Amino acid sequence: MSPSLDLSLYLVIGSDVTAGRRVDDVAREAVAGGVTAVQLREKHLPTRLFVEQARTLVALLRPLGIPLIVNDRLDVALAADADGVHVGQDDMMAADVRRLVGRRMVVGLSVTTLDEAKRVDADIVDYVGIGPVFATSTKLDAARPLGLEGTAAICRVLRVPAVAIGGIDADTAAAILAAGVQGIAVVSAICSAVQPREAAAGLALGQKSPRPA
Amino acid sequence: MSPSLDLSLYLVIGSDVTAGRRVDDVAREAVAGGVTAVQLREKHLPTRLFVEQARTLVALLRPLGIPLIVNDRLDVALAADADGVHVGQDDMMAADVRRLVGRRMVVGLSVTTLDEAKRVDADIVDYVGIGPVFATSTKLDAARPLGLEGTAAICRVLRVPAVAIGGIDADTAAAILAAGVQGIAVVSAICSAVQPREAAAGLALGQKSPRPA
Repeated sequence: MSPSLDLSLYLVIGSDVTAGRRVDDVAREAVAGGVTAVQLREKHLPTRLFVEQARTLVALLRPLGIPLIVNDRLDVALAADADGVHVGQDDMMAADVRRLVGRRMVVGLSVTTLDEAKRVDADIVDYVGIGPVFATSTKLDAARPLGLEGTAAICRVLRVPAVAIGGIDADTAAAILAAGVQGIAVVSAICSAVQPREAAAGLALGQKSPRPA
Repeated sequence: MSPSLDLSLYLVIGSDVTAGRRVDDVAREAVAGGVTAVQLREKHLPTRLFVEQARTLVALLRPLGIPLIVNDRLDVALAADADGVHVGQDDMMAADVRRLVGRRMVVGLSVTTLDEAKRVDADIVDYVGIGPVFATSTKLDAARPLGLEGTAAICRVLRVPAVAIGGIDADTAAAILAAGVQGIAVVSAICSAVQPREAAAGLALGQKSPRPA
């Protein structure tokens, strides 16, 4: 894994979750608020627009030292010269992605169960996304929520860094980090926020100083 | 372009057009009937299944000397070690595909208008798909039919080989070849046929000996 990959506040963004705002506008604000890595997830865009979107984000993020990771689509990541690819259990096999990109890209993998976590090959995968931790409305086909204990159990078997995703907000960020992940990943907590910068800053702060329930 | 690329009877196939039959079963029969190139087009499969489908077809077709070309998805083509990628006007730019694959893959491009045909760069694109020649029910978002005259006009400005697609059957194959294309491409004329082998053989024969109308 690139030594510069900071997973602490990982934004998942796409054109269908930004409430009609430009993806790059929301991403710019989110990074200004403390986001450390960005994943572009587009499930409905034609490939040409997806590549253009990824290029726009690379142009925005690279000068800021923030990696752009493309969900599912190695072709888009290659065309846009992105920093990585993130695959789920229905996407390309992580081993295939690694074989095709060598060490020039970060490879992330989603795991939703302890069994999947046990099968993660640290020689292939740079980091893991664990989730959903809590119930979420963002991903309608998401698996059963793991809870804090399920997340902690997965962290104990992993030999790669992990981010947790699914229904996380500023109030729960610190507790989730305590479960053993290196960072938290969010979609709606930032993308749906009226002020994405403030939302990101609140999440970054929430990691450090848990609020009372 | 690979000197072995024979465009004369080009099958476009995918899991949603084979009337519930396995794609590789229909492709095997079609090739036995005379199909010379196969394009796998999947617009709804998860990437993992798309890669598996493409690998199955490569394993079937390569020993037979028939190229497997993947529609839209360079990532799938790379993972499955396919012979080419075919892009439309909403897919990855042909120039990006060529830059990423070099000369190890065939690159095909769909054109639906004379203006698009004039912009085809023969240094980038190996062959063009022209269509729809006639109205077709296979592709609901297809452009306006070109007719024989529109197809011929496109052929006159192209500097690469072409296949025509859209509503072609054994009765019209010879007339379409006379418009200037190197081959005909079909979906439903083979994929929807009860006997794909016989349907392919009929199309191959139709190219040589036009039937009376």
